[in-house]
Amino acid sequence: MASKEIPYKIYLEESEMPTAWYNLRADMKVKPAPLLNPQTLKPASLDELSAVFCRELAEQELNDTDPYIPIPEEIRSFYKMYRPSPLVRAYCLEKKLGTPAKIYYKFEGNNTSGSHKLNSAIAQAYYAKKQGLRGVTTETGAGQWGTALSMACSYFDLDCKVFMVKVSYEQKPFRREVMRTYGASVTPSPSETTAIGRKILAEHPGTGGSLGCAVSEAVECAVSNDGYRYVLGSVLNQVLLHQSVIGLETKAALDKYGIKADVIIGCAGGGSNLGGLIAPFVGEQLRGEANYRFVAVEPASCPSLTRGKFAYDYADTGMICPLAKMYTIGADYIPAPNHAGGLRYHGMNGTLSELRHQGILDAVSYTQTDVFSAAVEFARVEGILPAPESSHAIRAAIDEALRCKETGKEETIVFGLTGTGYFDLYGYQKFNDGLLETYIPSDEELAKSLEKLPKVNG
Amino acid sequence: MASKEIPYKIYLEESEMPTAWYNLRADMKVKPAPLLNPQTLKPASLDELSAVFCRELAEQELNDTDPYIPIPEEIRSFYKMYRPSPLVRAYCLEKKLGTPAKIYYKFEGNNTSGSHKLNSAIAQAYYAKKQGLRGVTTETGAGQWGTALSMACSYFDLDCKVFMVKVSYEQKPFRREVMRTYGASVTPSPSETTAIGRKILAEHPGTGGSLGCAVSEAVECAVSNDGYRYVLGSVLNQVLLHQSVIGLETKAALDKYGIKADVIIGCAGGGSNLGGLIAPFVGEQLRGEANYRFVAVEPASCPSLTRGKFAYDYADTGMICPLAKMYTIGADYIPAPNHAGGLRYHGMNGTLSELRHQGILDAVSYTQTDVFSAAVEFARVEGILPAPESSHAIRAAIDEALRCKETGKEETIVFGLTGTGYFDLYGYQKFNDGLLETYIPSDEELAKSLEKLPKVNG
Repeated sequence: MASKEIPYKIYLEESEMPTAWYNLRADMKVKPAPLLNPQTLKPASLDELSAVFCRELAEQELNDTDPYIPIPEEIRSFYKMYRPSPLVRAYCLEKKLGTPAKIYYKFEGNNTSGSHKLNSAIAQAYYAKKQGLRGVTTETGAGQWGTALSMACSYFDLDCKVFMVKVSYEQKPFRREVMRTYGASVTPSPSETTAIGRKILAEHPGTGGSLGCAVSEAVECAVSNDGYRYVLGSVLNQVLLHQSVIGLETKAALDKYGIKADVIIGCAGGGSNLGGLIAPFVGEQLRGEANYRFVAVEPASCPSLTRGKFAYDYADTGMICPLAKMYTIGADYIPAPNHAGGLRYHGMNGTLSELRHQGILDAVSYTQTDVFSAAVEFARVEGILPAPESSHAIRAAIDEALRCKETGKEETIVFGLTGTGYFDLYGYQKFNDGLLETYIPSDEELAKSLEKLPKVNG
Repeated sequence: MASKEIPYKIYLEESEMPTAWYNLRADMKVKPAPLLNPQTLKPASLDELSAVFCRELAEQELNDTDPYIPIPEEIRSFYKMYRPSPLVRAYCLEKKLGTPAKIYYKFEGNNTSGSHKLNSAIAQAYYAKKQGLRGVTTETGAGQWGTALSMACSYFDLDCKVFMVKVSYEQKPFRREVMRTYGASVTPSPSETTAIGRKILAEHPGTGGSLGCAVSEAVECAVSNDGYRYVLGSVLNQVLLHQSVIGLETKAALDKYGIKADVIIGCAGGGSNLGGLIAPFVGEQLRGEANYRFVAVEPASCPSLTRGKFAYDYADTGMICPLAKMYTIGADYIPAPNHAGGLRYHGMNGTLSELRHQGILDAVSYTQTDVFSAAVEFARVEGILPAPESSHAIRAAIDEALRCKETGKEETIVFGLTGTGYFDLYGYQKFNDGLLETYIPSDEELAKSLEKLPKVNG
């Protein structure tokens, strides 16, 4: 098998697509710590979670025993419209770098939402529809998640209410317009439509909003409207479960051609892409069947895995969602205003945090100028204009390939290319004009934002 | 074969990709009329064309005898980065329409240029590089062609000078930014950098420019700079030759599953996509091997095939390019300012015009509100956000499918989905807000713009 010629793009057949998601927690001996109810500080129950989330999604959130969860037929049909996604051999990038390394990327950007977010959006919309709900609410910052959810809700004829951080709403009118085209209502946050929104507007007139505020409005909107639930595009284990389709396809494609990865790299904000990509490979390793190096790549301006603390923290700035044990730089932390892409969450998915804590997951961080220079280098040889988030993984993959060039090792590097940058051209423009600034928080700044960790940590 | 289950997306293997372009003119008994030198009004010679275009491209332009022209290995390598493109079965659209028709679309939008234009851009850049040129010049309106050419030139390390219609330059800063990211220089036209630009600026201070003016600047820039040639993204036969890769892949995919098309539909501005898509099928028909219905779809606001005259006309408003015999509404015709997409060329590729004249090619036109409503309907069920240009073909395909619903005929409809609409959200926003207006030129307006046809028509 190993001598089979590797095409530029490996596409699986539809018949080779996964029929079940992989639930990594089932194979972990030391499980991630449970979510805690923010009032009682006791493990959140299924009923408590079901008040906010769809019932079956809440069940998935708590399930750390079943290794495989079947993908419903309706979701598999939708997946077939844009999946399997290609695993691409970066022949041109390898040549440009002059590296003996073999570089592959799993490209998730070939759908209108422009990213992997659609993999979980369609699952969450499906369960909402199955439960007989009228609609769902969510928040969006950069807009990838909101776009994905709008598409998914349009497909299942569900109402979709998106609270979009006001500054993003104003700066990215095209993102907003895509969501509207898919029938979603998009409200700039903070808004007059919720009590929390009115409170914040009264206290901070003219504010541009924040992700934490938009979460609070979306949750309030869900719990105060009959037939609505709140949905989320990252951080939660249910999201990583759905995103395992990325890793399962990647593994199937590598296996098909007898390719063995040495390093697997993904960008990490809340962890949805990284967790989905590495899940089946981590499972192999936990079962003693293989050995990989896993690398999380995050922005230097929001360094939860590289400089954060492993502790229980609030999942949202409004402190209404369950507490999670995770690497965090504090729920009040907000990246510098010049931060151009996503990956701006203060914490990290609990499962990935536990893997990091166990020494299974490496983590590195890069400044955004380093990231954009990798993005442009990649775009020019591989054609694809990457999202700034995805470009973190590109930067790390390039650096790994250059390391191989020094050592002469023919390693196989696999990374997740989560999406495209068509709606991120403000960032590219700043970079092209030499105006993009880097920001690295000081130790004092991080220590200060970590002062407010909840008392449950003792 | 015919009973084989049809996947949502038919991908060819790399080994099934075309190794030669198909030159339809070789199979035409009555050939398209020759291009004429605008000064002498005699057929343009290879040497005359080579002063403006790359030598091998000029040869391709004049070649109406060789049915197959091998695709150079370097171009095939580049094609492999984003091709083969999928032939998609529109299962969800069929279901939504309740039609017995089977609908397929060849999707060319899965590359960063966002359209099929890259198929010819990479070929033209290759021949420029092979000829030892330093760079190429071109014009761009909406920006798809400029983006594609920027990508192609970046790949072959050629300088790329794009003259972008000023009003578009200002309204589409993100299109401009993608081109800059790929290393192109983008100049708003009219500019102070050319004699013709300075003349126009003196005569029309504050003008937003036009495609015709941008062509003239690009040609002047090419002929007045050593080592440069001018390249063009549509209208020419060389472009249709390169775009035949669309039709060849489509035919190979249909043949692979034993599918026989009844109707083949493409949007048409200069004809690059339509000509490429239908070429091998028209060839079959001309050889008496099959029978299809071919439909060109154009905007009601720029109706060359449906309301134009079949005559020699200027290819550009500056009247410096060769004359072509084609369906035209006059070189001075400019679509109404509210026209949202591309497909704004006053004429049509000469080969397609000849096919229309021979009764082989049907043509229909739609207003842009009809087109955008089809775009939104398609996006919501098929996921892909289509370009306004492509949505003309969607509109026609939907109407054909609804006709089948009435008649009960199980016809197979194939259409070209040329690109994505990520940079066209101004148009979507207008449509979503109910502000998109339709425009249909009056007979008097068309008669007036046709008054200036060159005298060679007698």
